[in-house]
Amino acid sequence: MYDYISGYTDGEGCFSVSFLKRKKLTIGIETRPSFSISQNEDRAEVIYLIQKHFQCGHMRRDYSDKTLKYEVRKLNDLLLKVIPHFRKYPLVSGKQKDFERFAHVCELMKNGKQHTKSGLRKIVHSACQMNPSGKRRYTQEELLALLR
Amino acid sequence: MYDYISGYTDGEGCFSVSFLKRKKLTIGIETRPSFSISQNEDRAEVIYLIQKHFQCGHMRRDYSDKTLKYEVRKLNDLLLKVIPHFRKYPLVSGKQKDFERFAHVCELMKNGKQHTKSGLRKIVHSACQMNPSGKRRYTQEELLALLR
Repeated sequence: MYDYISGYTDGEGCFSVSFLKRKKLTIGIETRPSFSISQNEDRAEVIYLIQKHFQCGHMRRDYSDKTLKYEVRKLNDLLLKVIPHFRKYPLVSGKQKDFERFAHVCELMKNGKQHTKSGLRKIVHSACQMNPSGKRRYTQEELLALLR
Repeated sequence: MYDYISGYTDGEGCFSVSFLKRKKLTIGIETRPSFSISQNEDRAEVIYLIQKHFQCGHMRRDYSDKTLKYEVRKLNDLLLKVIPHFRKYPLVSGKQKDFERFAHVCELMKNGKQHTKSGLRKIVHSACQMNPSGKRRYTQEELLALLR
């Protein structure tokens, strides 16, 4: 089952780190790591099973493409449940590189690095190398400009 | 690795049985089972690895959606390599039902049932219950009409 989850994730899963401008934060930017797996609702049994396995995360409906998305956003759950799983049962595809960058970001966050300019620069750099085909709200240059 | 392949297939793989009108065949219809997994070319390492695991099948480029497709069509390879794998390491999603129908069709074909009207009717019936969201060249009714 453990290796099955890694295989399924290698096809359908996504590790990503997004950023939001937040005036209330001294640093001005919120860092939001997320592990997610989307699936059509009529085939959602697998993601419910994966949620049960990880004992964390939530389901949310994506009305834009009529899928159900299993998502883990809490840093502690990512650090203690999700990341250890994929260290033990690695992905086989190039997505493993995304995972390594994702894990690196989460570990920086564990040490509060998202609250310092130099730490957040490192996080932005790693995050922007992930999922090159995905859309980003802000480019790496826009984010780094905010940290000057 | 074995369970990983089942996980990956549960997300990205497809078991299907298609039909072609063939005047040269006495029965008039050719039955074509296929196991396939598609992937973007830049992430194709997994399907090469799966090909290596199964020791059969071929790769083909799908120019319509710029993917690479790993495909097994030979009945003997399906019966001796692909089907035993998924019996031992089953899929978790509803796709397992498609697999069972697929395996049933391949076993009927092992016994030459695709060459008799009553056997082919059974095959058509099973095949048309698979992948309900997929497109079919002929409807079940059209195929059955040819067998009257």
